[in-house]
Amino acid sequence: MAIKYPNGKKYVPAATGAASKKPALQNSYSNRGMTLEKDLNDTNIFYLERGLAVIHKKPTPVQIVQVDYPKRSAAVIKEAYFQQASTTDYNGVYRGRYVDFEAKETRSATAFPLKNFHEHQIIHMRKVEEQNGISFVIIRFALTEEVFYLPACQLFDYWDRMEQGGRKSITKTEIENTGFLIPKGFQPLIPYLSVIDRLYF
Amino acid sequence: MAIKYPNGKKYVPAATGAASKKPALQNSYSNRGMTLEKDLNDTNIFYLERGLAVIHKKPTPVQIVQVDYPKRSAAVIKEAYFQQASTTDYNGVYRGRYVDFEAKETRSATAFPLKNFHEHQIIHMRKVEEQNGISFVIIRFALTEEVFYLPACQLFDYWDRMEQGGRKSITKTEIENTGFLIPKGFQPLIPYLSVIDRLYF
Repeated sequence: MAIKYPNGKKYVPAATGAASKKPALQNSYSNRGMTLEKDLNDTNIFYLERGLAVIHKKPTPVQIVQVDYPKRSAAVIKEAYFQQASTTDYNGVYRGRYVDFEAKETRSATAFPLKNFHEHQIIHMRKVEEQNGISFVIIRFALTEEVFYLPACQLFDYWDRMEQGGRKSITKTEIENTGFLIPKGFQPLIPYLSVIDRLYF
Repeated sequence: MAIKYPNGKKYVPAATGAASKKPALQNSYSNRGMTLEKDLNDTNIFYLERGLAVIHKKPTPVQIVQVDYPKRSAAVIKEAYFQQASTTDYNGVYRGRYVDFEAKETRSATAFPLKNFHEHQIIHMRKVEEQNGISFVIIRFALTEEVFYLPACQLFDYWDRMEQGGRKSITKTEIENTGFLIPKGFQPLIPYLSVIDRLYF
């Protein structure tokens, strides 16, 4: 189901809209992570359409400062700022269970830098785990196009190691050993529910 | 826990920021529903701090059209538009279960107009129910300050009745009979988990 808004237009993710104004950046910095986001959105639509799970990406949090209300047309936000998310980007429901994850991409071949996560997100994931939710991160190595499912409890170990003065990244070998390679799919592209099935059901 | 962003400022909900630029509207249209939203946010913080549940309001979906990137300062969104949400506003996890709801307020004394919900939200709630999630709406009657928990399955009945040509609202008596009055609390203000306990655990 392609969700359409009342104006009949298809939903265009915010980041794409912004990027379209800055074509020079399309294939460099601003586009980082867009492949993973797009593949996950397609995957979530696949799961949604087939009634397998209801998982959505949360909207980008924005602090709105000024809004114009022109007569006879839609309100226009004239000044706003990106806010740092206090939770993860994706959540929803699968077979009654709460599913919550963050997705990140790296161009490193050998390790995943922990600075990709914010402290708030780690705190959030710990709280989700305490509530018996299914919490994990999806990590994509762009160079090899490998996508891993890393359970949050494993991520906490690496995070705590860093906090105690240890390395600021997770080596790829560690991710291979403590996470799960998500086999590349066609429909869906990133079949992460298969890992949840294996771990929880 | 008051969530603070890296600039050290407390999170200010978008709608408040927008309203502050339009003081004339503060106590009329633009402020409608803010009491309920604020009370629910306080309730969710209460539940979060005590480790009882992890439930958040989703950010307002915004379509970003133009962003300026000034040197040495934060990116400024210069043109953006409010989008209609395709899901409900609140979701999270309670004792492993997925919780999902929408909250609405009315100034009517006798009935709750169904136009407060969008078709997309009803479709979303049906999918959540199919996945065995806990789906409901919170309805506040502003005049009497009564707050009700109405299970989604009941809402579907009223929605379907409207679709079949019936009344376009739910009478207050119907809400009293098929929903649950949430007793007014102090800590938390709207103790909706107590209804979930009664219905699901």
